[in-house]
Amino acid sequence: MDTKTVQALLNDFKEGRLSMEKALQLLKNLPFEDLEFAKVDHHRGFRGTIPEVIYARSKRKEEVVAIARAMYEKCRRFLITRATEDIYQELGMKEAKYYPASGMIACGERQRKKGSVLVISAGTSDIPVAEEAEVAASFLGSSTGRLYDVGVAGIHRLFSRREALQKARVIIVVAGMEGALPSVVGGLTDRPVVAVPTSVGYGTSLGGLTALFSMLNSCVPGMAVVNIDNGFGAGCLAHKINMMGSR
Amino acid sequence: MDTKTVQALLNDFKEGRLSMEKALQLLKNLPFEDLEFAKVDHHRGFRGTIPEVIYARSKRKEEVVAIARAMYEKCRRFLITRATEDIYQELGMKEAKYYPASGMIACGERQRKKGSVLVISAGTSDIPVAEEAEVAASFLGSSTGRLYDVGVAGIHRLFSRREALQKARVIIVVAGMEGALPSVVGGLTDRPVVAVPTSVGYGTSLGGLTALFSMLNSCVPGMAVVNIDNGFGAGCLAHKINMMGSR
Amino acid sequence: MDTKTVQALLNDFKEGRLSMEKALQLLKNLPFEDLEFAKVDHHRGFRGTIPEVIYARSKRKEEVVAIARAMYEKCRRFLITRATEDIYQELGMKEAKYYPASGMIACGERQRKKGSVLVISAGTSDIPVAEEAEVAASFLGSSTGRLYDVGVAGIHRLFSRREALQKARVIIVVAGMEGALPSVVGGLTDRPVVAVPTSVGYGTSLGGLTALFSMLNSCVPGMAVVNIDNGFGAGCLAHKINMMGSR
Amino acid sequence: MDTKTVQALLNDFKEGRLSMEKALQLLKNLPFEDLEFAKVDHHRGFRGTIPEVIYARSKRKEEVVAIARAMYEKCRRFLITRATEDIYQELGMKEAKYYPASGMIACGERQRKKGSVLVISAGTSDIPVAEEAEVAASFLGSSTGRLYDVGVAGIHRLFSRREALQKARVIIVVAGMEGALPSVVGGLTDRPVVAVPTSVGYGTSLGGLTALFSMLNSCVPGMAVVNIDNGFGAGCLAHKINMMGSR
Amino acid sequence: MDTKTVQALLNDFKEGRLSMEKALQLLKNLPFEDLEFAKVDHHRGFRGTIPEVIYARSKRKEEVVAIARAMYEKCRRFLITRATEDIYQELGMKEAKYYPASGMIACGERQRKKGSVLVISAGTSDIPVAEEAEVAASFLGSSTGRLYDVGVAGIHRLFSRREALQKARVIIVVAGMEGALPSVVGGLTDRPVVAVPTSVGYGTSLGGLTALFSMLNSCVPGMAVVNIDNGFGAGCLAHKINMMGSR
Amino acid sequence: MDTKTVQALLNDFKEGRLSMEKALQLLKNLPFEDLEFAKVDHHRGFRGTIPEVIYARSKRKEEVVAIARAMYEKCRRFLITRATEDIYQELGMKEAKYYPASGMIACGERQRKKGSVLVISAGTSDIPVAEEAEVAASFLGSSTGRLYDVGVAGIHRLFSRREALQKARVIIVVAGMEGALPSVVGGLTDRPVVAVPTSVGYGTSLGGLTALFSMLNSCVPGMAVVNIDNGFGAGCLAHKINMMGSR
Amino acid sequence: MDTKTVQALLNDFKEGRLSMEKALQLLKNLPFEDLEFAKVDHHRGFRGTIPEVIYARSKRKEEVVAIARAMYEKCRRFLITRATEDIYQELGMKEAKYYPASGMIACGERQRKKGSVLVISAGTSDIPVAEEAEVAASFLGSSTGRLYDVGVAGIHRLFSRREALQKARVIIVVAGMEGALPSVVGGLTDRPVVAVPTSVGYGTSLGGLTALFSMLNSCVPGMAVVNIDNGFGAGCLAHKINMMGSR
Amino acid sequence: MDTKTVQALLNDFKEGRLSMEKALQLLKNLPFEDLEFAKVDHHRGFRGTIPEVIYARSKRKEEVVAIARAMYEKCRRFLITRATEDIYQELGMKEAKYYPASGMIACGERQRKKGSVLVISAGTSDIPVAEEAEVAASFLGSSTGRLYDVGVAGIHRLFSRREALQKARVIIVVAGMEGALPSVVGGLTDRPVVAVPTSVGYGTSLGGLTALFSMLNSCVPGMAVVNIDNGFGAGCLAHKINMMGSR
Repeated sequence: MDTKTVQALLNDFKEGRLSMEKALQLLKNLPFEDLEFAKVDHHRGFRGTIPEVIYARSKRKEEVVAIARAMYEKCRRFLITRATEDIYQELGMKEAKYYPASGMIACGERQRKKGSVLVISAGTSDIPVAEEAEVAASFLGSSTGRLYDVGVAGIHRLFSRREALQKARVIIVVAGMEGALPSVVGGLTDRPVVAVPTSVGYGTSLGGLTALFSMLNSCVPGMAVVNIDNGFGAGCLAHKINMMGSR
Repeated sequence: MDTKTVQALLNDFKEGRLSMEKALQLLKNLPFEDLEFAKVDHHRGFRGTIPEVIYARSKRKEEVVAIARAMYEKCRRFLITRATEDIYQELGMKEAKYYPASGMIACGERQRKKGSVLVISAGTSDIPVAEEAEVAASFLGSSTGRLYDVGVAGIHRLFSRREALQKARVIIVVAGMEGALPSVVGGLTDRPVVAVPTSVGYGTSLGGLTALFSMLNSCVPGMAVVNIDNGFGAGCLAHKINMMGSR
Repeated sequence: MDTKTVQALLNDFKEGRLSMEKALQLLKNLPFEDLEFAKVDHHRGFRGTIPEVIYARSKRKEEVVAIARAMYEKCRRFLITRATEDIYQELGMKEAKYYPASGMIACGERQRKKGSVLVISAGTSDIPVAEEAEVAASFLGSSTGRLYDVGVAGIHRLFSRREALQKARVIIVVAGMEGALPSVVGGLTDRPVVAVPTSVGYGTSLGGLTALFSMLNSCVPGMAVVNIDNGFGAGCLAHKINMMGSR
Repeated sequence: MDTKTVQALLNDFKEGRLSMEKALQLLKNLPFEDLEFAKVDHHRGFRGTIPEVIYARSKRKEEVVAIARAMYEKCRRFLITRATEDIYQELGMKEAKYYPASGMIACGERQRKKGSVLVISAGTSDIPVAEEAEVAASFLGSSTGRLYDVGVAGIHRLFSRREALQKARVIIVVAGMEGALPSVVGGLTDRPVVAVPTSVGYGTSLGGLTALFSMLNSCVPGMAVVNIDNGFGAGCLAHKINMMGSR
Repeated sequence: MDTKTVQALLNDFKEGRLSMEKALQLLKNLPFEDLEFAKVDHHRGFRGTIPEVIYARSKRKEEVVAIARAMYEKCRRFLITRATEDIYQELGMKEAKYYPASGMIACGERQRKKGSVLVISAGTSDIPVAEEAEVAASFLGSSTGRLYDVGVAGIHRLFSRREALQKARVIIVVAGMEGALPSVVGGLTDRPVVAVPTSVGYGTSLGGLTALFSMLNSCVPGMAVVNIDNGFGAGCLAHKINMMGSR
Repeated sequence: MDTKTVQALLNDFKEGRLSMEKALQLLKNLPFEDLEFAKVDHHRGFRGTIPEVIYARSKRKEEVVAIARAMYEKCRRFLITRATEDIYQELGMKEAKYYPASGMIACGERQRKKGSVLVISAGTSDIPVAEEAEVAASFLGSSTGRLYDVGVAGIHRLFSRREALQKARVIIVVAGMEGALPSVVGGLTDRPVVAVPTSVGYGTSLGGLTALFSMLNSCVPGMAVVNIDNGFGAGCLAHKINMMGSR
Repeated sequence: MDTKTVQALLNDFKEGRLSMEKALQLLKNLPFEDLEFAKVDHHRGFRGTIPEVIYARSKRKEEVVAIARAMYEKCRRFLITRATEDIYQELGMKEAKYYPASGMIACGERQRKKGSVLVISAGTSDIPVAEEAEVAASFLGSSTGRLYDVGVAGIHRLFSRREALQKARVIIVVAGMEGALPSVVGGLTDRPVVAVPTSVGYGTSLGGLTALFSMLNSCVPGMAVVNIDNGFGAGCLAHKINMMGSR
Repeated sequence: MDTKTVQALLNDFKEGRLSMEKALQLLKNLPFEDLEFAKVDHHRGFRGTIPEVIYARSKRKEEVVAIARAMYEKCRRFLITRATEDIYQELGMKEAKYYPASGMIACGERQRKKGSVLVISAGTSDIPVAEEAEVAASFLGSSTGRLYDVGVAGIHRLFSRREALQKARVIIVVAGMEGALPSVVGGLTDRPVVAVPTSVGYGTSLGGLTALFSMLNSCVPGMAVVNIDNGFGAGCLAHKINMMGSR
């Protein structure tokens, strides 16, 4: 029920086509989303970026392709996460780009990117998650950069790139094993840091719990942490923060 | 070793008072912080807000008071976290304000606050952590608001205040037990949400781990999570994000 | 040993064919189930619905089919849980219906269903467990309804269906990840809520433990929780509660 | 905003005291609870029993007493959970009854109790939680009974009381340590069973987690489980189910 | 170095062929096992039963067969645990018997079994572990019996067989899921009970940890617990205890 | 209902004072414990040793003393576990003996002890649990010995006492921290070993879980494990096993 | 930027080709690794041994072979860890040696080994990890020895080899299951002991956590522990310590 | 039985005062520690440093003082760990020095210290554990240095002291919370690093488990880890390694 419907209802009541009792009843029974149009409208502005994202993992190839095509019809763009090359072949759209490390398929990248999100990863095994974060932030409209394989075992590599750190508005730091890199980066910058633990490691890495807990306990105050291997979530969060600087 | 020292060194070498060998050796052995002055200078700008924070828990009353007074001498302001009323009495400064729920003592609040950080808490037992977050963000320079006791068991209380949600730049959501509130809030807004799990609860709340894991697994993408009961960290993070909107 | 056997024993003793000593000994050694016939008889009334359920997972295809056919011979109905389409093909009974999402095969649905059990699920990945719950409750004799994909990230979808909530006698809420949905539903209704955590999620979802603990810690008092992914158990429990309203 | 307010609004619009634009805006900004009166009204019927419950643990003695007295003024009854005798003395109301094992204070018990909730406990150490469950169910309006100290180590004690089991509508089973009792009871009855794990035990009882997990894994299908030591929650749930049989 | 060697050494010293210094040095450097012959001899008596057991899991088929044949050459008997039918085929010995449920191959069963070990299992899924326990105890020389599928959900099945319980010297109880059966059995007998948790179950069964912790927390004092799925260990322990009654 | 009651019932029926219908009904409703007299009688023989044990921890001093005195009246002996010296003073019975390390009070030790239970402990901090095990076994009628402070860090102390090991029928090994001692002892003897983990240790000892898991994973097959700090349970189990050798 | 670059910079400045301002700026912006050459040079001495190690697991066969060949070109030696025989075949270098148990490929072993590292393993299943440790230490330049299958269940085997223990400079002890062997070895020697837990075991071995925690809680002070299955890390650490004795 | 006793035994046998049979029997029954004198003698050299260490925590004040005095009588030196100032007062020996942060009392420090052990700590709360490590290593004979409060949040403080790092033979790194510091230090040096996790932190620091797991998962190969808060163990291990460089 949009504004027009409520308007009509009010007019019907004013002009006597609707009794008070009936008007009240209709208003009481309005579905939530209809009445709450201010919020829903506003919401849609944001939601507009999210429905275009398709999580491929638990869907069949044909389903994913069908949803992607429908999305393309409607708004000329979509982002598929946790996809396989198979899906990309089936899709057969040259406008779409496939990212093999993270298994993402992006279509309809915006021309104008804003601000600056820097994605740092500790080891080569963390790259899939880092790429997922970067592609997500980029698809949502953030300008992005990357700095890979700068783990704490060879920390001079990080220091030699400190100009890159200073240029970013938001920094995503992806690390598995001991998860120490976000703390080191956080100690070198005053930008918001989004820490992403990965499930890289074995034994007491506990599938990423150690890196996660390590990041939550960082001695650097004010670090944002997301779930294990959640590159997509980190990209969304970094984009939201990055956009704050553009308003 | 500041710029002048390096300048002098270069001049000494140019004018032959220093051999090539000696000049190289001196440069090699420069302490890190001296050479890295650009970064350190820049860094200090940020660090300037953090050294004024004193963590009282593991210190004796006299220590805390002495540090606070020294801080006051130097920069006319300080923030003490996890303090007791005892410390406040001993301090005896009427410029300082004591927050009994969170045990914070703030002195030298800035006149001009910027932006808007909204702190929402689920239950009355979560208030100490919520207050810690709010006082921290406020002390650092953010304008803050609060919305307490709006847990998911009575979710209409939250909906009736949705205008407050829409006015905030960043929202901190504090919740213990099942930690569901940040997901609900995150579904109603497109602002960055900082979720703070608390140790409130018993049995399977596992000292806050359940709320923490719940928040990390939120079906709402892009939520920032901090450590259990870490109101201070949430306040710092929210302030950093809030300031992005003011640059 | 049924009633007749005890009767015969008593008669044998009365008429001197059995000594006191022998009669006592026979009574002492009566198998439990024989003597306890009142309870067993009563019990059977209930058990009558349960033996017809066949758990397929740890059995070979031929075994399952054989048990199902024998069951069909005896009482014209059966329910197979955790089955595959393979088993359904092998079975080759058109009276039976296969539910692919949950892997259930139901045969001999009762004509008259009673009361009303509403099954709500948070995400599309939770549907297999939700379907298991619904089919189980329906097979046992409850009238059922469903409300899928109404997770807390888009909570207005739930509110727009609140009439459905008010019509149900018992509500089953199925959710993985952060497990917040049962708390939200529980805050909107006074019906008994059966919460079913699922293993949907990754990282700190810990195979469903986070959703489980979240539900056990709900700030809404009086919610029933079952084991992770235990749709069948939830269906049984909801049916038992639903039947209370029909007596 | 109650029905009258909406009625007034509609009249104001009809009679031209309110423009279409203004009327629309007012309707859009109606607080949730006001518009949703149907639900809220219905809800209040249930909520009416819950606000009378005061959780004493995290409140000061004077606070608890003040809330209880205010409650008494308003509706002549209240229930205080996790209280101490101290609070009872301070309260000084002879209409109120103190239950020392569970630390509950009940005032204004209803005359007519309905249905039948049986509370069974395994060991003497489980009695505080069992009593909390029983007093809660009783206060809410259920007729209750108790069967204490019938743990599985002496299971014949349970069997000798099987008539009591058969008379109950709902059975609450409270057990710590290995948490086996609910499974045994559940195998002897077809009534809904609410299982309450307690933190009684040491070593691998893990503060009640072992009993909880044990209950969630019961080989008896359809058992409702609540949080560790959550007697109050079990009482609420059992009461809701019990009431189903009275409608 | 056996007794003769020490004897020779002493004689050499006595007759001057060995200096005091040299004799002392030789004694100092005696390998432990040589000197400790009393213990070793005695030990061998026990060890004699254990080396005949071959753990197949981490060995290749050919290895297992070769070891089994060598063992057969030496002592006419062997027991292979965690074997496959493949190994049994490869072995090609008709003196050997294959147990498909537990994957054991036994050869050279002793004619005379002693005492009585009763193996009880809760569900049909626990049978592989139960069979492993029974075959192990039997191979080591204990007379064994079995009582399968008598879980607590249908506890009358256990009671109807209580004579079997009373005849056993030692009782092994195998159970997964909630692990309640050993407590119930332990409450019905004064024989030593060996409880074996299995990894049967899902969700909060935590791979058998719940059953294990449940058994360790039994309210029945004096129950012996072994590792999850450790049927072999339970069989060894029960045999040792059973043999105590035969000395 | 004892044998006489059933006898009377049978006679009443035989002589016509009881109809068939009434006799059947009475038999059906016999309380379990009455019918099951064979088992109960036999059971009582064992139970006779257990009711004399009083667990003091969760009882008030006066309660413990009253129960102990009543017990003394009835059977001249009792055992109090987890007691304090306070209770011993209050009891004021010089026939009773107080064991301060374990907090046990034993009264009415049997003159003739049988068999031999050896209690070994790893460190001095494990002595309270070791003493609890020894006093329990001794009170129940086993002859006991002790070998304290022979941890694996100085394993030669254990070897120098290997004669003691060989004389025991059953060996209880008590160890905290890494829990390695039972494995070493188990490798040196063919007697049944009862392993008792203690909560001694810090950090990764996890309150005794590490010692417990270590013992359950022993490479020595056939070791019995009990709960953390459960000296009493170990004593009961060792006594049961020890008695097997005396029948 | 190496020494020559800095030298050139200084000369340029001295001879006026570079202004003071420009020289300062260049020095400020020197990448960390260039300026820090002293450390880097020194570091390289150590790093020289580590870059030659290739972790094969997360790389494709062709990648591993290409890296190994490039490494061979550069320094005539390399070590591949977690490789398969497939990789070895593909590599086709007869200078390289393949270790099937641990999956290592070593090429260019140094002629002169130093000191002495003894690798002890508890069971045959621990050999892959033990071999990884030994090959790593050997490749890095340590002389190594091995002592396999000397677990605590047959501890006399260890004692009979105590001369080997006394000859080693460093001892690596590899054990799964209960992880008791390092404690026993540590009690027999004053050499540094490096304890390596393995994931060998089942049930409560918890994938090696039990062995790890056991080792960290050893009653022998001063034992070094590494991650579960981390044979390579243990080899590196033992080599570093061993080399201390050679300086 | 020392060398003399064996010598006497041999002489008695040589001179006929002892029969062959009797001599053999005596040798067989020699307590382990007596025969194994070579090992024990050698061992004592090491043990000589350890018996002088008294763990005060689980002992009464008088006990600790008595043991310390006896120790002083015998060898003029002792080290008390986990002591209180109370004990120091009671001891009243001015030769002894009290370290309040770690609660150690050292007496009889050796004049000549060897090598160099550097103790680094991350935060001020880690100092008690760091001091325990340093005092232990120093007491055992190592020359020690300290570098406190150089956590990763301000990593330039560490870099400015890299000469100290390069001078040390062994480095102990003490850190709580995220435990990242050892990885950073390990990346800057090729010396053996002993990592000590502390229980400093809250929430997901899990009492030090997170720091421990973080250290075990370090991306720097070859780091030695000890138990949580185990400064004493770290000191012993570092001393052993340090001594390797002095042989």
